Amino acid sequence: MTSPTSTATFLVHSPDQPGLVARLAGFFYKLGLNIIDASNHSDPHGAAGPRFFMRLVVDLGGLGKPQAETELGSATRGSLEKAFGELVTSLGGEVRVAWSDVVPRIAILCTKDPACVYDLILRQQAGELACEIPLIVSNHAHLEAVATSFRIPFFALPVTKETKPEQEAKVIDLLKKHHIDLVVLARYMQVLSETFLVAAPPVINIHHGFLPAFQGAKPYHQAHERGVKLIGATAHYATRDLDEGPIIEQDVARVTHAMGPEELVRVGRDVERVVLARAVRAHVDNRVVVQGRRTFVL
Amino acid sequence: MTSPTSTATFLVHSPDQPGLVARLAGFFYKLGLNIIDASNHSDPHGAAGPRFFMRLVVDLGGLGKPQAETELGSATRGSLEKAFGELVTSLGGEVRVAWSDVVPRIAILCTKDPACVYDLILRQQAGELACEIPLIVSNHAHLEAVATSFRIPFFALPVTKETKPEQEAKVIDLLKKHHIDLVVLARYMQVLSETFLVAAPPVINIHHGFLPAFQGAKPYHQAHERGVKLIGATAHYATRDLDEGPIIEQDVARVTHAMGPEELVRVGRDVERVVLARAVRAHVDNRVVVQGRRTFVL
Amino acid sequence: MTSPTSTATFLVHSPDQPGLVARLAGFFYKLGLNIIDASNHSDPHGAAGPRFFMRLVVDLGGLGKPQAETELGSATRGSLEKAFGELVTSLGGEVRVAWSDVVPRIAILCTKDPACVYDLILRQQAGELACEIPLIVSNHAHLEAVATSFRIPFFALPVTKETKPEQEAKVIDLLKKHHIDLVVLARYMQVLSETFLVAAPPVINIHHGFLPAFQGAKPYHQAHERGVKLIGATAHYATRDLDEGPIIEQDVARVTHAMGPEELVRVGRDVERVVLARAVRAHVDNRVVVQGRRTFVL
Amino acid sequence: MTSPTSTATFLVHSPDQPGLVARLAGFFYKLGLNIIDASNHSDPHGAAGPRFFMRLVVDLGGLGKPQAETELGSATRGSLEKAFGELVTSLGGEVRVAWSDVVPRIAILCTKDPACVYDLILRQQAGELACEIPLIVSNHAHLEAVATSFRIPFFALPVTKETKPEQEAKVIDLLKKHHIDLVVLARYMQVLSETFLVAAPPVINIHHGFLPAFQGAKPYHQAHERGVKLIGATAHYATRDLDEGPIIEQDVARVTHAMGPEELVRVGRDVERVVLARAVRAHVDNRVVVQGRRTFVL
Repeated sequence: MTSPTSTATFLVHSPDQPGLVARLAGFFYKLGLNIIDASNHSDPHGAAGPRFFMRLVVDLGGLGKPQAETELGSATRGSLEKAFGELVTSLGGEVRVAWSDVVPRIAILCTKDPACVYDLILRQQAGELACEIPLIVSNHAHLEAVATSFRIPFFALPVTKETKPEQEAKVIDLLKKHHIDLVVLARYMQVLSETFLVAAPPVINIHHGFLPAFQGAKPYHQAHERGVKLIGATAHYATRDLDEGPIIEQDVARVTHAMGPEELVRVGRDVERVVLARAVRAHVDNRVVVQGRRTFVL
Repeated sequence: MTSPTSTATFLVHSPDQPGLVARLAGFFYKLGLNIIDASNHSDPHGAAGPRFFMRLVVDLGGLGKPQAETELGSATRGSLEKAFGELVTSLGGEVRVAWSDVVPRIAILCTKDPACVYDLILRQQAGELACEIPLIVSNHAHLEAVATSFRIPFFALPVTKETKPEQEAKVIDLLKKHHIDLVVLARYMQVLSETFLVAAPPVINIHHGFLPAFQGAKPYHQAHERGVKLIGATAHYATRDLDEGPIIEQDVARVTHAMGPEELVRVGRDVERVVLARAVRAHVDNRVVVQGRRTFVL
Repeated sequence: MTSPTSTATFLVHSPDQPGLVARLAGFFYKLGLNIIDASNHSDPHGAAGPRFFMRLVVDLGGLGKPQAETELGSATRGSLEKAFGELVTSLGGEVRVAWSDVVPRIAILCTKDPACVYDLILRQQAGELACEIPLIVSNHAHLEAVATSFRIPFFALPVTKETKPEQEAKVIDLLKKHHIDLVVLARYMQVLSETFLVAAPPVINIHHGFLPAFQGAKPYHQAHERGVKLIGATAHYATRDLDEGPIIEQDVARVTHAMGPEELVRVGRDVERVVLARAVRAHVDNRVVVQGRRTFVL
Repeated sequence: MTSPTSTATFLVHSPDQPGLVARLAGFFYKLGLNIIDASNHSDPHGAAGPRFFMRLVVDLGGLGKPQAETELGSATRGSLEKAFGELVTSLGGEVRVAWSDVVPRIAILCTKDPACVYDLILRQQAGELACEIPLIVSNHAHLEAVATSFRIPFFALPVTKETKPEQEAKVIDLLKKHHIDLVVLARYMQVLSETFLVAAPPVINIHHGFLPAFQGAKPYHQAHERGVKLIGATAHYATRDLDEGPIIEQDVARVTHAMGPEELVRVGRDVERVVLARAVRAHVDNRVVVQGRRTFVL
């Protein structure tokens, strides 16, 4: 496979049934489109019976061949998406497509902590995250210089209990105006309302995590008092139940009794940014299917 | 340091105060006893003010020198322990001593799962755990052959809700008769009563752990339904609050959506036995100080 | 998918070409055989051009359907294997099949160290390794009692430089007589001759590994002198170039300056047995394709 | 311990001998200086016999007490350093002191890769590295904007085979002019001459590492061809033997057959920057003693 000009990534899930791999792959074969990468998984434990998941990366170079035109009517991405969508629908399933040259646009929501913000921008610039970052919104002016140094538009929208609905509406406006596909909460220390979550594109959040879990304020101090030996972080989609959305990625780091609460925070910050970056990467690579409270990362 | 015939390991903790390292180390220096290994830690976050922890491993070869006899009156372990104990008491602290040639005796309590039992025995035989294992007790006869193949006395003491007090009393008798210093719950699927815990030597338990935590039955199934990406294990001292005792050691392993609940159990078992072995090792090496709900592992 | 009575696992590789997933999956679809699990990978970096790898797990329940009989002539495993083999050959590829109810038979070769031997047996007994272990061969009598306690035939075949060809011939005889499919060197401290490797079934070896690498005797002592912070282990197929065969699995553990060479050995032993078990598991699950000096673990 | 205004960190090593902990700690006790943190280690494997290592962090608040003045003649840092140095010398040992309010000054040498450069600067700004970064030197102009955005003086000094001695002399001049205490090679793709290393302050380098190791060009491509499952990084002090200096820190990350050489590079970059940051942190915290080809990190 020499590097193709463009690819499409199809992410399919449906009730499991015989012949799925053959039929889904056969669709592209008949069109003369080459499957560059594919993976699939059957989950026997689905709530509504066994469920099938498949991710297919297809070389769009083949769209120019007569074979594709004949089969599809017109050899356009629109026709391809429509025809494959019809196949998946006929199987009782759902599909999401991402085009390699239509780069997802990410908005970062942050407060004052620069660690995750820098990390996401630098990974994007290094080519690790296949996305653009055309918008940073904060409830403080604190990180404006960071945004400016990378020439990213920055908006400080302070928020209080009273102004929250109004502030959230302004954020939604910004997301729309900048055609944002994904919101990343890079330690944005605000709870989002259900109204916001309904109006916004998908939202990924990063959350510290401990064994055992701690409720309430100052979790790192609680973890310290309890003498935990591990500090964790969980990246998940934000849902109405705060910190209870479908988990995309998790990791931990080791800590010792010699570390004070501040050092636990420092170690936690390192884990958080790595976990958040991995989760964002999985999302923009069109690898994540949400099913109820679970994710499948193909 | 050529390998000494015998050593003593002193584990001290006390309110922090100037000169502790000098005074504790100076005690042995004056006696002509060599400190082979030492580590100490000051915890500024103690509930009752800053607290100091020190572990000292001392070569007992020096006890034969006239210097020691002069200072102690008689050059015996008893005199040494008494004199050092008086020093620590005068500092408001506490001390625990372990002699390298007085090997701690461990009882394993298990049910049917052989993994942790084999693991502990094999590590002990390989010289990784400085202890003896002269007793295995189970509420089932299931693992008798394992015990027999290593010539370890095995007692099957079935337990029901009604016979629990009586069965626990029998276990306590066995622990006393076999001079047990530490009880290890190697997946002993029974809750121990407070009466038992008061009468028994220290008890180490191993417990699965997840992010987030799950209450109730079938935790691995709950973890599976929630799509966790990590499976953890926590080794802790057993206290009245089940699974809430001071944590000695923790670790995790990575899992994926492709693993069913049974595979999560398998991965969890691997983590559990490693974590349990590390915790037992830390305890028998006299490294663990409990302070409230925390441990300090020196 | 309710648990199927029997499955077949096909492991295919071939030059990459359009339509492979569709054609391979389509083969089983036409027969009415359900694909339970599938994964594939295209490697653009193959020495002889891009190469395609696919693993398909097929429910053999469908072999009883008229559809299969019609297509295959006779609805037998033999016909299925032959027909699929012809398809793969026509694509210029190769295929290996494993039947879930034909359990691979493993021989363990060991010397004196019980850790890896116990580990493999206990994992097999716990259902983690889908194999039988009907044979243990050692150049010492040391581990006979271990084998006996699990009722596994044990043969002590001492070896010297002079008797090596003869001893190896005896081992080969034992492997044949016991119908062994895979040899696992569980710290068998002998270099195997090329003659042996040609005559034997696949051989998996476990090898310590360090950064940097150390040549010559006492590698743990060299690693200690060099102050390494990590201890590694590599499981690989044995080839003529000792410790240079295709790598199946690797892992490391952390060590500190406070550990002497013996402790490095202890930590290394723990890593070695986990890595070896994972490699054996991948092999018996028919997941490993060797290509030159690389493996692909699907 | 309330947070002290200033501390001194003494790092001592000497031939092992009885009473070292007592005598070193006793020195500060007599002066009325409080030891906040201490750790020590006896290495029985030293080339010239057993060797003792100790790190002591001392609260300088006590220097104002009459007791310190009486003992030292004058209660100055100079007198303290001199008196403790004399004690250590009398024991045949060596000592290095760091004052918490005399912050080490680091120069970053880089080429074109921004990852490690940003990482060090951001960690320094977040308070994770107790140092200043007043100088960045590169053989390319590429990263000038990065330096400028953090207001750090930047010098581009191109280098060819012919101009190397001259360019290195200019770098040495810059190091002197900016009073640099430590040079960090953040993927500076140039071999430093022995002349440079003799004239420069300590130099920390980061180096990829593999199991097995690969010599020669394009190591990531070699690692890919060999199918390694782990990618490692080693931070070490630079010595004449390129990539052979004393190791300070190491770590690895997992890779799979599905990753091409470019992805191995990406994963490697993530490991490299974490490992480099940890090594720099250990150095600026005055924790690292070099002994021959080993380090002891206290």
